Amino acid sequence: MNRGRFITLEGGEGTGKSTLLEALRERLQMVGRTVMVTREPGGTELAETIRNLVLHPPEGQVWSSMAEALLMNAARTDHLEKKIRPALAAGSWVLCDRFADSTRVYQSVQNGVGVEVLKMLESSVLGETRPDLTLVLDAPVEKAALRRAERGGHADTFELRDKAFHEDVRQAFIDVARSEPERCVLLDASREADEVAQNAWHEVESRLFELRQSLSS
Amino acid sequence: MNRGRFITLEGGEGTGKSTLLEALRERLQMVGRTVMVTREPGGTELAETIRNLVLHPPEGQVWSSMAEALLMNAARTDHLEKKIRPALAAGSWVLCDRFADSTRVYQSVQNGVGVEVLKMLESSVLGETRPDLTLVLDAPVEKAALRRAERGGHADTFELRDKAFHEDVRQAFIDVARSEPERCVLLDASREADEVAQNAWHEVESRLFELRQSLSS
Ligand SMILES: Nc1ncnc2c1ncn2[C@@H]1O[C@H](COP(=O)(O)OP(=O)(O)OP(=O)(O)O)[C@@H](O)[C@H]1O
Ligand SMILES: Nc1ncnc2c1ncn2[C@@H]1O[C@H](COP(=O)(O)OP(=O)(O)OP(=O)(O)O)[C@@H](O)[C@H]1O
Ligand SMILES: [Mg+2]
Ligand SMILES: [Mg+2]
Repeated sequence: MNRGRFITLEGGEGTGKSTLLEALRERLQMVGRTVMVTREPGGTELAETIRNLVLHPPEGQVWSSMAEALLMNAARTDHLEKKIRPALAAGSWVLCDRFADSTRVYQSVQNGVGVEVLKMLESSVLGETRPDLTLVLDAPVEKAALRRAERGGHADTFELRDKAFHEDVRQAFIDVARSEPERCVLLDASREADEVAQNAWHEVESRLFELRQSLSS
Repeated sequence: MNRGRFITLEGGEGTGKSTLLEALRERLQMVGRTVMVTREPGGTELAETIRNLVLHPPEGQVWSSMAEALLMNAARTDHLEKKIRPALAAGSWVLCDRFADSTRVYQSVQNGVGVEVLKMLESSVLGETRPDLTLVLDAPVEKAALRRAERGGHADTFELRDKAFHEDVRQAFIDVARSEPERCVLLDASREADEVAQNAWHEVESRLFELRQSLSS
């Protein structure tokens, strides 16, 4: 059985990660791949309990960036052990809505945790399980905010931050993408959803479908 | 204002940590010290939410040692920031029922997390705030089990483990005490409670009361 491929979708709030994930799922299934879709923080029963603690702390309480970084990594540990690694081993392609790069970004911006500590946490938790491809969605902060506003729903502790915060998050995601070009692609997410999906699909095909695989599928 | 002293009590379940803590609190207060008593995992509102997740996971769910190590360190981060450091800075003596050595022990025994990862987590989280004195209570596993049984109450996820586990825990605490003799004292906790308290008090006096301090108190 071939190991599946691991694709993560990253970017600020409202950039269109969940929308793109659905489009990719459909296309992968159309070409015969088994696909498992998941998200972070969360993805397993235990990880979702941590997600809830982080995104909705008790009234009046605030987590420090360091506590958040540790909690996110605890959730990721469970998610990797119980869901992502078994799915990949069974041949599934795994599409994950946010993953380790979101921790690099959100827990480091604005005087958060130092990059060295974050790196060491990440490598302890990920081990060999690194994404084969990371699609980083980039769009102007105002545009993403408008999309989120139109979508409605309740805001969590990160969504409630100010514009400067979201600008810093945008820049930090760009920096991640540039720092690992073999793994990451920066996509212009200000385009129409169809066009974003088309661009993303092109990257999936060219980077992850070996000639042998695409002929036999 | 003098910084207070930070004393931690460590050892397996039922060795008498909570009992000794009360005895030390009384004596310190009798000699005029301001004392803050706290415990781990927990100690703050947010840390107690993590304690609850770790000790009582949802039905049928099990945390890996790595997830536990990250959660314990997340709780400790909050506890240090919001309670321990402010108390020490205000001149209080802090007595803490379990602290970082319990993570070294419980998350490493029986093929748990590697010692290097645990060390790096510990130093990221503690920074400069290391205990001035750690009292490690040592007693035969059967004796401690008997005491716990007599005390009654509900068992958590660690207390339910088998005898070999508790033997490994006992040995790991002995190893911690031996590896840092400047900070740690190994106390024979199989003795009468009064005698244990007397021995512990002797260590507090000789190691933490400077001559100037004891004359002026
Ligand atoms: N390329 C696009 N053009 C216009 N609207 C889009 C585009 N992509 C997504 N949207 C819409 O914008 C809103 C936010 O998209 P989506 O929920 O996919 O973003 P997200 O990155 O998953 O956000 P969050 O971080 O909050 O989960 C949705 O209403 C979605 O329909
Ligand atoms: N030296 C002692 N001799 C006999 N009994 C003791 C002694 N110290 C404590 N006990 C009794 O043993 C029981 C366990 O003690 P205690 O609760 O202080 O242990 P602990 O280390 O805090 O346990 P836990 O890890 O479960 O919190 C209590 O009922 C206590 O009264
Ligand atoms: Mg989404
Ligand atoms: Mg106790």
